Amino acid sequence: TIVQTLERHFSLQDVLVGKSVLITAGPTQEAIDPVRYISNHSTGKMGFALARVFALAGADVTLVCGPTYLITPEPTIRRVNVRSAQEMYEATAAAFPKAHITILNAAVADYTPAHPATEKIKKKEAEFAIELTKTVDIAATLGTLKRPDQLMMGFALETNNEHEHALGKLHRKNLDWIVLNSLRDAGAGFGHDTNKITVMDRQETVAEFGLKTKDEVAADLLSIIVQKL
Amino acid sequence: TIVQTLERHFSLQDVLVGKSVLITAGPTQEAIDPVRYISNHSTGKMGFALARVFALAGADVTLVCGPTYLITPEPTIRRVNVRSAQEMYEATAAAFPKAHITILNAAVADYTPAHPATEKIKKKEAEFAIELTKTVDIAATLGTLKRPDQLMMGFALETNNEHEHALGKLHRKNLDWIVLNSLRDAGAGFGHDTNKITVMDRQETVAEFGLKTKDEVAADLLSIIVQKL
Repeated sequence: TIVQTLERHFSLQDVLVGKSVLITAGPTQEAIDPVRYISNHSTGKMGFALARVFALAGADVTLVCGPTYLITPEPTIRRVNVRSAQEMYEATAAAFPKAHITILNAAVADYTPAHPATEKIKKKEAEFAIELTKTVDIAATLGTLKRPDQLMMGFALETNNEHEHALGKLHRKNLDWIVLNSLRDAGAGFGHDTNKITVMDRQETVAEFGLKTKDEVAADLLSIIVQKL
Repeated sequence: TIVQTLERHFSLQDVLVGKSVLITAGPTQEAIDPVRYISNHSTGKMGFALARVFALAGADVTLVCGPTYLITPEPTIRRVNVRSAQEMYEATAAAFPKAHITILNAAVADYTPAHPATEKIKKKEAEFAIELTKTVDIAATLGTLKRPDQLMMGFALETNNEHEHALGKLHRKNLDWIVLNSLRDAGAGFGHDTNKITVMDRQETVAEFGLKTKDEVAADLLSIIVQKL
């Protein structure tokens, strides 16, 4: 069980009582018109597993999540449903000042249609282009606001030069840790119940983990964070 | 129950035994890169309700469906899972010659990225554009292949000039009926368990239905089709 998994890692009792934890999860949907959108393959499973272990460890968890059919895993979790990257940014920024620990697990759209249509776009031209504009970079924005009493973990999904890109992100966004998911590993990443991660910290210490269930990965990450409190 | 609903409409027993019915359902996902895609808000609920009532009426049902978390509603249904508009077209075209009745309920992407990337696109430029190209028009293509012994029903979702656009589609694509969903009606359309439809035939007879469960709407549509057999 998840509780046993947690207990294998550290003494669970009340280790996070009184701590506010902010977790983002799932994809975002960026409207092209009232019917169509741009999204990604995130299901939210990893973020929901994180919300669960932190809630079980006594933390006061706020879970900001994009569109997903997943059920809130513990009744004590405060769930905030959002759709777009802009909504994700607003909900996350609102909860951030109170959060002792922030885990940015959501797969937030980097780009959004610059001019979403209010009516369904008709099929006319053989070709057309959707103009995209950058969304707010949530991790980078919160990184500039982060106080010394706050810890922040980010996630990176890379398909090439994984380590280099992830470390660049860690420093540029003022994160305490970055968790690298690779799409190269079978059974890891989007939609699976298992994941295979590499965790890097500000000293560029690299910890590689084997393929585990997302619940076990969540417990590993909790353990890493607790050691820094 | 759904069986009672069916019995209210017509004598259910074996009315479609020996008939092959092809139904498409759900959205499609068009890859931008390995992580991102373009999709739409269809959940597949209406198509799955149709597959269920036709299976209950004894038909041999093939259900071609895009990405959805819905469970196949009856064990006799042959389910074919697809992702992209191109895959939806290929699976539907392959099953079409044997189908006595074809119901095109899927919300198939009209456009797809012209040059999907094989690596995750990095966030660099402040703006960029996704070049799109038209997908195969499944209804129009099957319309040109349709034999006199085949019946075909299409769906239209319009946000303006609904009737005019739907009738244009009916004739242009050689459909026997077009079912119009409006996003204007509360409780109707994507994601809801209820729907409100208008059905038009080749004589431009217009039948308007009230807000009903998708199971009841499916039974109404089955009733309309059975009368033409």
